[in-house]
Amino acid sequence: MSTPGPALVVHGGAGHVARDRMEPGGAERVREGLRAALARGLALLEAGAPALDAVCEAVAELEARPEFNAGRGAVLARDGSVQLSASVMRGADRAAGAVAHVCDLLHPVRAARAVLADGRAVLLVGEAASALGRAAGVPPASPDELIIPRRRADLERALRDGGAELDLDADHGTVGAVACDARGRLAAATSTGGLTGQLPGRVGDSPLIGAGTWADDGSVAVSATGTGEVFIRAAFAHQVDALLRHAGLDLASACDRALEEVTRLGGRGGCVAVTPAGDIALPFTTRGMYRGWARAGEARHVALFAGDPG
Amino acid sequence: MSTPGPALVVHGGAGHVARDRMEPGGAERVREGLRAALARGLALLEAGAPALDAVCEAVAELEARPEFNAGRGAVLARDGSVQLSASVMRGADRAAGAVAHVCDLLHPVRAARAVLADGRAVLLVGEAASALGRAAGVPPASPDELIIPRRRADLERALRDGGAELDLDADHGTVGAVACDARGRLAAATSTGGLTGQLPGRVGDSPLIGAGTWADDGSVAVSATGTGEVFIRAAFAHQVDALLRHAGLDLASACDRALEEVTRLGGRGGCVAVTPAGDIALPFTTRGMYRGWARAGEARHVALFAGDPG
Repeated sequence: MSTPGPALVVHGGAGHVARDRMEPGGAERVREGLRAALARGLALLEAGAPALDAVCEAVAELEARPEFNAGRGAVLARDGSVQLSASVMRGADRAAGAVAHVCDLLHPVRAARAVLADGRAVLLVGEAASALGRAAGVPPASPDELIIPRRRADLERALRDGGAELDLDADHGTVGAVACDARGRLAAATSTGGLTGQLPGRVGDSPLIGAGTWADDGSVAVSATGTGEVFIRAAFAHQVDALLRHAGLDLASACDRALEEVTRLGGRGGCVAVTPAGDIALPFTTRGMYRGWARAGEARHVALFAGDPG
Repeated sequence: MSTPGPALVVHGGAGHVARDRMEPGGAERVREGLRAALARGLALLEAGAPALDAVCEAVAELEARPEFNAGRGAVLARDGSVQLSASVMRGADRAAGAVAHVCDLLHPVRAARAVLADGRAVLLVGEAASALGRAAGVPPASPDELIIPRRRADLERALRDGGAELDLDADHGTVGAVACDARGRLAAATSTGGLTGQLPGRVGDSPLIGAGTWADDGSVAVSATGTGEVFIRAAFAHQVDALLRHAGLDLASACDRALEEVTRLGGRGGCVAVTPAGDIALPFTTRGMYRGWARAGEARHVALFAGDPG
């Protein structure tokens, strides 16, 4: 099979926010963030860097931007704390790293990558995850650096309204990226602040390999976003792999079928996916999914809502 | 399809411990524990209780017994703490609950079930998991109630030997159960203390839906045990489902194929599995797997090592 050249797909979360409910300038800032994430990942891919570098740096770009629910700008748990999660997976050897319930890092995706590099564990939670990240050079961040005023207001509203654990109307959530590099290697990365008003200690699908994140060079790389509990119960990201590999579906059909299962279980969301052949998919069952995609030698695209031309 | 009547399979972990290295009376105490777990689960199934009740109570029986690495008798993390994890899944609606990094409950499987019943989250970590468990009536336990002297000695030896994160020679780990009830409904439950000398904050496959635990009435219930990181990277329990459902394999072949993938990724272990037709499987790639199984109208069996008649 010929190598189709690099491809990168990023997302900034699926959700129901209507175009006319975004704050002034918000849509353009989201587009800027998606473009910046694409640019950063593509620069690496075009320089011959492995897919894992590209997805980590694309996600780190989104984590640093307050428009997205990850890193700085993450939503707040019921107790007002930030609880960050992230995971990465490398398709070549299915090495993986993940962190959950992290309160003091700007870039949980880099801590997840440090867990992968360390190799002793796949998933670390809490202070141990932060400590391993810090030891690998991931800078600590205070709550003041992570929390933006809008998220405090979001939490107050959610608590007033009786909690919004599974309410995608409030926010787009979660960022992620998948890439196929110049050598046909795949990687996926996902990072999230969870859900506004969530139970402290809740872990959604984002840091869970096989649920929110998956990569196998023999099949597909996937990063998901949506009602996390349902994506876990659907084993979503691995299910896309299974449908491709064992059920003979093409990428678009495999993603659609896996999302139908999410719908059947009462959830909504979307994903980004790429195969070693360079096929990409970006389906979602919500009103919108912030997304950007680029393939070698083609124009870069970003889009926010269903039907956006990109 | 006719309903084949209840079936229950339990495990007390896969490992490499040689028969002649067990402590005096140890093998008989393990057999007693497996028999007690079978008896407790079967009594429920024969009284018409749902599969979820049977697997939770069978696992709770093993958690209470110091011979097994779960609940009382769990191994110790590098810092000398107990860090318990458990998960449960109900095949009828794929509802699931899980807890990780719990330090103060004798029965994490009951906390996992409480998370399932609560419905707001699938996975809770740390104090939030304990708190939800306690609120649901799961009694707290002190370190003195959970830690047995032998585990302190195990930790000292592991630290002296330079850590034993992925050393199955030291211990059989993890307990679990799968059941098919009188109405053909499935459930799975898994509980563990992790690995002797593990990084504090490490979460293995046991509390992760799709890795260590899976149940879907349309396919299979699975509880796994082994080198947890590899089972996560193999999406092991969901992979058994995928191979059954999409690749057309029978249960034994699906389990074997999924375990081959674990071997290829550098891991070892085993699983117990049951289908709605009442087929069961108990394969392992280690020297032994503590295991027990019973089907309606048949004798109950327990076995410890490869080749044991049961």
